Amino acid sequence: MKWARWLPCIGWGRDYNRNKATQDAMAALIVTLMLIPQSLAYAMLAGLPPVMGLYASILPLLAYAVFGSSRTLAVGPVAVVSLMTAAALAPLFPAGSEAYIGAAMLLALLSGLLLSGMAFLRLGFLANFLSHPVVSGFISASGILIAIGQLKHLLGVSASGQSLVQIVPRLWQSLAATHWPTLLIGLLSLAWLWWARARLKPALQHAGLSAQMAGNLAKAGPVLAIIVAIAAVTLLQLDKVGVQVVGVIPQGLPGLTLPTWDLDLMVQLLPAALLISLVGFVESVSVGQTLAAKRRQRIEPDNELLGLGTANLGAAFSGGFPVTGGFARSVVNYDAGAQTPMAGVFTAAGIALSVLLLTPLLHNLPHAVLAATIIVAVLSLVDFRSLGRTWRYSPQDGAAQLATLLGVLLIGVEAGILIGVGLSLLLFLWRTSQPHMAVVGQVPGTEHFRNVERFAVIESPSVLSLRVDESLYFPNARYLEDRIGDLIARRPQVRHLVLMCSGVNLIDASALDSLETIVERLHTAGVQLHLSEVKGPVMDRLRRSSFLDHFGGQVFISQYEAMNTLAPSVRQPHQPPAPRKTDENCPRPGN
Amino acid sequence: MKWARWLPCIGWGRDYNRNKATQDAMAALIVTLMLIPQSLAYAMLAGLPPVMGLYASILPLLAYAVFGSSRTLAVGPVAVVSLMTAAALAPLFPAGSEAYIGAAMLLALLSGLLLSGMAFLRLGFLANFLSHPVVSGFISASGILIAIGQLKHLLGVSASGQSLVQIVPRLWQSLAATHWPTLLIGLLSLAWLWWARARLKPALQHAGLSAQMAGNLAKAGPVLAIIVAIAAVTLLQLDKVGVQVVGVIPQGLPGLTLPTWDLDLMVQLLPAALLISLVGFVESVSVGQTLAAKRRQRIEPDNELLGLGTANLGAAFSGGFPVTGGFARSVVNYDAGAQTPMAGVFTAAGIALSVLLLTPLLHNLPHAVLAATIIVAVLSLVDFRSLGRTWRYSPQDGAAQLATLLGVLLIGVEAGILIGVGLSLLLFLWRTSQPHMAVVGQVPGTEHFRNVERFAVIESPSVLSLRVDESLYFPNARYLEDRIGDLIARRPQVRHLVLMCSGVNLIDASALDSLETIVERLHTAGVQLHLSEVKGPVMDRLRRSSFLDHFGGQVFISQYEAMNTLAPSVRQPHQPPAPRKTDENCPRPGN
Repeated sequence: MKWARWLPCIGWGRDYNRNKATQDAMAALIVTLMLIPQSLAYAMLAGLPPVMGLYASILPLLAYAVFGSSRTLAVGPVAVVSLMTAAALAPLFPAGSEAYIGAAMLLALLSGLLLSGMAFLRLGFLANFLSHPVVSGFISASGILIAIGQLKHLLGVSASGQSLVQIVPRLWQSLAATHWPTLLIGLLSLAWLWWARARLKPALQHAGLSAQMAGNLAKAGPVLAIIVAIAAVTLLQLDKVGVQVVGVIPQGLPGLTLPTWDLDLMVQLLPAALLISLVGFVESVSVGQTLAAKRRQRIEPDNELLGLGTANLGAAFSGGFPVTGGFARSVVNYDAGAQTPMAGVFTAAGIALSVLLLTPLLHNLPHAVLAATIIVAVLSLVDFRSLGRTWRYSPQDGAAQLATLLGVLLIGVEAGILIGVGLSLLLFLWRTSQPHMAVVGQVPGTEHFRNVERFAVIESPSVLSLRVDESLYFPNARYLEDRIGDLIARRPQVRHLVLMCSGVNLIDASALDSLETIVERLHTAGVQLHLSEVKGPVMDRLRRSSFLDHFGGQVFISQYEAMNTLAPSVRQPHQPPAPRKTDENCPRPGN
Repeated sequence: MKWARWLPCIGWGRDYNRNKATQDAMAALIVTLMLIPQSLAYAMLAGLPPVMGLYASILPLLAYAVFGSSRTLAVGPVAVVSLMTAAALAPLFPAGSEAYIGAAMLLALLSGLLLSGMAFLRLGFLANFLSHPVVSGFISASGILIAIGQLKHLLGVSASGQSLVQIVPRLWQSLAATHWPTLLIGLLSLAWLWWARARLKPALQHAGLSAQMAGNLAKAGPVLAIIVAIAAVTLLQLDKVGVQVVGVIPQGLPGLTLPTWDLDLMVQLLPAALLISLVGFVESVSVGQTLAAKRRQRIEPDNELLGLGTANLGAAFSGGFPVTGGFARSVVNYDAGAQTPMAGVFTAAGIALSVLLLTPLLHNLPHAVLAATIIVAVLSLVDFRSLGRTWRYSPQDGAAQLATLLGVLLIGVEAGILIGVGLSLLLFLWRTSQPHMAVVGQVPGTEHFRNVERFAVIESPSVLSLRVDESLYFPNARYLEDRIGDLIARRPQVRHLVLMCSGVNLIDASALDSLETIVERLHTAGVQLHLSEVKGPVMDRLRRSSFLDHFGGQVFISQYEAMNTLAPSVRQPHQPPAPRKTDENCPRPGN
């Protein structure tokens, strides 16, 4: 059935059994323990009430379980997307206000609609605009920006902003106002989390636990920090002395809510929603594919789009904010042995339970602890070595990565991405705008034609053979006109120009126009254009235009044939072909 | 000398002689007669006092003569650029006001700086963003928009706007207010110009003039219309009855003026200036190349950029507005026998003279006549058949052209271009995001490898050979991951994957990351990646990264060698290679 391809759950649901269920449930338990602090923290990072993080971790997980194609992806609030949410909304409304919350849900709605739309319209390729250097530059910058942005919670001061340019000075000014109890709590949890991250598992093993058990318990490190912190605040009544805490959380599941339907606001949020969708999709797909490959499973980009789209719609209608597949959580989910998206269903159940039961206990949870969990989580995203690597490999790509990094840090999240995308498109266009073209001549005694600058070949004075090593399309169409005009201007005695199209996979309308212009110009200069070795698909397309009828030249099946016809004098007796050079577009026939 | 390359005039100046001078002067005379009405008209079209058109036809011509590389390009005000100028300024200031005039000069300044900057920074390739379908869609739409926009002058009413959506209703409402004397003048000159355009030359020949002479005189058709109209207005005192006339024109040459240095306005005008520069450059270069080719001359894009840049700077400092190389005028200049840019110098002198002497006479020149000259000139730009042609050839390109056409007509000039450029980039990305990849096998008894779906070939169960027929870069990097993940998931028994890179001309940083991700994923699935037939340049680049050290596979010089090493069992005894199919990337060794 056609619609079945949109419901991967049918596939894995058919042979679902108790054994898989147990594994999924076990993984779900661990992911839940990890997700509770993270979802609270990322909601705070997005400038929203922490409980919204929990809301955003119920319905979205169910939606993805139904429509998503990855078996082990763990959907929910993630750092980068939360940062982008804050960046999109902070300029419009005061953080945490009613309007701000409504806009966050609207953002999730838009992102959900965009992703679902892309799924049905097969627009997943849009994510290609985000080249790897841009994405990695963006991720690193986000890590730094988030970490520094959270310092205010550690210091117990208020200093927020869109970029380092705004945040750093404000932090500096407010240093004097540091709230020492808060700072103490923050530093302690920071130290604990840092230690637990690397050392807790070995320590537990040393204490005699099995590696598996130790590993799973270690995941609960942040939860311990939270429990201790809550206990401390409650016993010492630290909230009375000004330690910022989560405060009252409405108990119970989120009601089904409708985002405020404000058209102007929607238009205003659209660009941000598009970027959030693309970035989230890219991050989610890359981790999903990595995990799927380990078990030789497949994920379908279109299903991923729909899965993430419905997840965001779920968030929008249950008081959440934009979500996507998280890297760390998904890996944990996978390691913990999750077999199917049912693990996500169990996780959602776990979060729902904790919303029902735990919310009163979270009242005294200090913001500083959440900030610490964020900082520890995001600093692992920062990777400067990749910048050096990219630069060494290709300065153009390095430039795009650096531009994105600096753009995000100094101007802002969206500006940074747009700068990076723009620059990589520019550089790409520049790179492809001057394809390699070689004047070729016949290798004596063979039927092969080679670059006259690299081989001792025979050239005909009246026939010019030009090989193009690139498809002909608008980025290089004008260069083709230039180049040919140049070549002909330098060779007054030339009467025929043979374009050797062995490397041409496409001729778009721009290139066709250029070819027609070239033909006209050549005619006025008394030169006739011919084509050789045109590929089947390209030929079919040319037949749809009138070019072949009126360009006046011939289309030769091979360059050799072209020379035979146009310059028989230069013809060489045929001998067995000489071995090829591998720098040509051809497999070597023999050694 | 290095700087000499920026002064083409040294080249043609060296062997300049009386003979050439006479030819240039003759051509200049004809172009001047053509330029006077056009420059007045296009200034009006730009929403400026007609005399500014004359100002914009003096200094700019001298500047281009010094720095431009085309021998016969005729620079000055042109319809499309004037339209773009009006589109950029009309929303900001009332047409014809001081501020509006100042902004027009500022626009010329910006455009001049941008073009000159692009010349020195070698950014001419930016013009490639304007694919042919976008340009031709834009030109046709401009023609329609301009013609309809001029109707108000024929009707003697006021009804202006940025797009048909605005103009048409206003025209309709003001039909009642039609000023009949004006309409009569307009229709008469329209009829005369229309007739003169096609029939005047034959008629003159019939009257016994030489073809050459007749052709030249015919060019002066518009001038006659102007003279007659002025006479009629003066004798019948039509200006008294409300026929709009040019009015008082300050006599004398334009003084050297400095555009108002308003930073905010500059930033506001920058996008428009960039579009005007690019469009002007594209139009100018295409006509320049066409004319140069006829005499096997060359034009250097960089010199054209500088020539047009300085021309616009000249316009900015002499009370003009954005200029570029005009199509019609350049052809006339060429046909009239212009030999060098000195013809432009003579033309400038001619215009200067007429500014000094004729301006009083132009007082009674009706706007309707100028409108008629514009309409006749621009309707030749409209070409709907090209849309059909493009669509038949490639629906994607057709869509881009249609989008630009509609965008310009219904929304506005800049929006239309941006929509077209955006769409053609999208479609380009979509097109290259899924390159052709073929699983290949060995043709029995040969060392050639062919698509398993098109040839009867030998495949190894444990070694998968994949040929990629496209460079690997960010538009298709993720597709590569998808595709390989897919292939491996379907072939559990595969242990080696050989990527045949005979068609890969570039591997950018995104593709390198993808390759590294692929290697990792393959490892987790127990498969090893290898490369074969990697081109020299690509190999050099790969050596700059650590990929080759740690990817664990081998780089084979040929696919055959790869199979020999990885699956010797499948090896075939070597026999002389069979003839190739031309749909492969290779010349045919023999028939």
